[in-house]
Amino acid sequence: MEREAVFSTRARQMTRSVIRELLKLTADPEVISFAGGLPAPETFPVDKVREAAEKVLREEAAKALQYGPTEGDIRLRADLAGMMREDGIDADPEHVIVLTASQQGLDLIGKVFFDPGDTAVVGFPTYLGAIQAFRSYQADLVGVELDDEGMRPDLLEKTLDRLESEDRRPKFIYLVPDFQNPAGVTIPEARRRQIIALARDRGYLLVEDTPYRQLRYAGRHQATFQSLAPDCVISLYTFSKILLPGFRLGWAYGPDWVLDKMVMAKQGTDLCSPPFTQAITHYVIESGGFREGLQHTIELYRERRRVMLESLDQELGATEGVTWTRPEGGLFLWLTLPEGCDTQELFEAAIAEKVAYVPGRAFYPPGMGGERSMRLNFSYCSEELIRKGVSRLAALIRKQLG
Amino acid sequence: MEREAVFSTRARQMTRSVIRELLKLTADPEVISFAGGLPAPETFPVDKVREAAEKVLREEAAKALQYGPTEGDIRLRADLAGMMREDGIDADPEHVIVLTASQQGLDLIGKVFFDPGDTAVVGFPTYLGAIQAFRSYQADLVGVELDDEGMRPDLLEKTLDRLESEDRRPKFIYLVPDFQNPAGVTIPEARRRQIIALARDRGYLLVEDTPYRQLRYAGRHQATFQSLAPDCVISLYTFSKILLPGFRLGWAYGPDWVLDKMVMAKQGTDLCSPPFTQAITHYVIESGGFREGLQHTIELYRERRRVMLESLDQELGATEGVTWTRPEGGLFLWLTLPEGCDTQELFEAAIAEKVAYVPGRAFYPPGMGGERSMRLNFSYCSEELIRKGVSRLAALIRKQLG
Repeated sequence: MEREAVFSTRARQMTRSVIRELLKLTADPEVISFAGGLPAPETFPVDKVREAAEKVLREEAAKALQYGPTEGDIRLRADLAGMMREDGIDADPEHVIVLTASQQGLDLIGKVFFDPGDTAVVGFPTYLGAIQAFRSYQADLVGVELDDEGMRPDLLEKTLDRLESEDRRPKFIYLVPDFQNPAGVTIPEARRRQIIALARDRGYLLVEDTPYRQLRYAGRHQATFQSLAPDCVISLYTFSKILLPGFRLGWAYGPDWVLDKMVMAKQGTDLCSPPFTQAITHYVIESGGFREGLQHTIELYRERRRVMLESLDQELGATEGVTWTRPEGGLFLWLTLPEGCDTQELFEAAIAEKVAYVPGRAFYPPGMGGERSMRLNFSYCSEELIRKGVSRLAALIRKQLG
Repeated sequence: MEREAVFSTRARQMTRSVIRELLKLTADPEVISFAGGLPAPETFPVDKVREAAEKVLREEAAKALQYGPTEGDIRLRADLAGMMREDGIDADPEHVIVLTASQQGLDLIGKVFFDPGDTAVVGFPTYLGAIQAFRSYQADLVGVELDDEGMRPDLLEKTLDRLESEDRRPKFIYLVPDFQNPAGVTIPEARRRQIIALARDRGYLLVEDTPYRQLRYAGRHQATFQSLAPDCVISLYTFSKILLPGFRLGWAYGPDWVLDKMVMAKQGTDLCSPPFTQAITHYVIESGGFREGLQHTIELYRERRRVMLESLDQELGATEGVTWTRPEGGLFLWLTLPEGCDTQELFEAAIAEKVAYVPGRAFYPPGMGGERSMRLNFSYCSEELIRKGVSRLAALIRKQLG
């Protein structure tokens, strides 16, 4: 049998996730890892989960352990619509679909929009999981560089002009507007309105992927794209960073004509998300455990972010050409070294010094950028480890810069 | 915005699952439904799940509520390899990957094998979820009719000859060898060997989808395709019918060069299956609760199958031209009416008489067969309801046949 030839074109192009492969290297307990995107386990509301699991198994096991509707548990959909209404979105539970984590949302969006060679506009750098999901449908991702306020509307307009002149209208514009992964930047409301005006004017959909939105430690919430333009925005959310990742639950919200297709695609993908953990999540929300836990998480991460920024200021503040973003929320910041540096090359030395990060290249399609940047996570390590890890990393960078 | 035009070719062709839409019609509690594929909730080992969930949350919450490896919990993979070894397969835990139910396995197989227009051979009738998953990658499904012993090797050979002469080598042959859904038939070992010889001779992969294998009520186990041809068989399993569906967990086993691609595809699809329910499932297996529950399930379904077959014999044994399969296991049997009947047309009358089934058409691509057949499920209803439901259905059929 000709092994490689039997696969689809997409599969022949597939590579393992750089980050997930890299996380295996950082499994050494001596390594202080800023590489992962892991929430801190001390934020998981274990007692509330236990109470909810007991309740579900006591009162509704026959239903919770059975198949469920593809769209999700109607009670959880109502909870989620309620949360969205508090965030200024006029949300209808019927327009919420529960996902097996927001990664499934990216996969379903890829599935329902992309024929091979179709185009989408994404920010550069952008979330690796989105690159991976969209490329698995052989989409051509066209990047618009971010600045400290996210995607630049002027560059977006130029990109759209160019794509339209080449008869390559993108299927949508993909945005991570709040504390973007990996850059940590947030799009201000005025800029959101500019991007929406551009999209509406030309008839484009926007995909708003916002896994960290509730994790704000400073500054003011900016209105969601969904609240500003419900007619043309599909929003993806996940519980992974705001409750826990181990249930693999998230949700999508958007115009019904798009959600309808996503539901059909989901039927062929996993029939439904697990009713058991959906019911548990519903009761964790109902009991107030979710809200209480989220407040605790915000306080914990606010301190860790502060410690990482302080440590960077102390250790690298005087080192010319090294810059980093100052995120108002989320899990990550983005550090950039002077011209000529290569964070991929530096990675091996970092592991030898027992500190890890994700090289910036992982957040671009191959060869398209990120060479001298790195993503640093501040949610997972304790304050003490953050100080120690930044110190190791800074020593390495200073040495590297001579 | 031109709504339909913005979708991918595959999405424009997508339809909602006939069965899942139909199940909504059967939600009336007065309707006795043989339509679903639901396991009986009384088979769920609720106490064992509760004990396992408590243990997980007490002893390993930080791990179980976190992200996990894409391949799955290594303890569960070892459990599954152990179960497969008891079934005559020389299974290595490293070659087991945990799936978010076997439906995800079908989706991943579609993703890694099909370019638009690629071909696969399937039995006709065949599992609707497979049709849906494969067609979502725009595969062309070529059917080989089943008889009472499953896929016919002589027809398979002719089909392969024809496809090869048309330069349309199929990517694989898809089989549900044990108590096939929907027909209830099982491929005897000798025929399995013939199919394998054909596939090996011509260099084809086989996909063995076997969700019901452990649910045998009569006769002897036939060796798995996996045990007979580990070099060219990818096997899919699920916990949905043998433990419970509400965790959405299943697994795949096969040659590493295929599993590698499936793991890469899974990374872009959901990163990992839920570590929480994987850990619970591991402890349910370790405690013996799985094995004990399975024995109970087999006894329960054996009786329900007997009652359905007896009721059909009594009610329709004398009605000329009505035939049905006599499955040795699984959840379904396949009933066929005389020429000229249409089970889709009959469906509305059946609902009016408060009994439901799945029209046979659902198990063929549109227009390709099944018009006068229906699938009947015998796992979900109590013996009393089975008798009453068969009685209603038989009265309707006799009336229909004049």
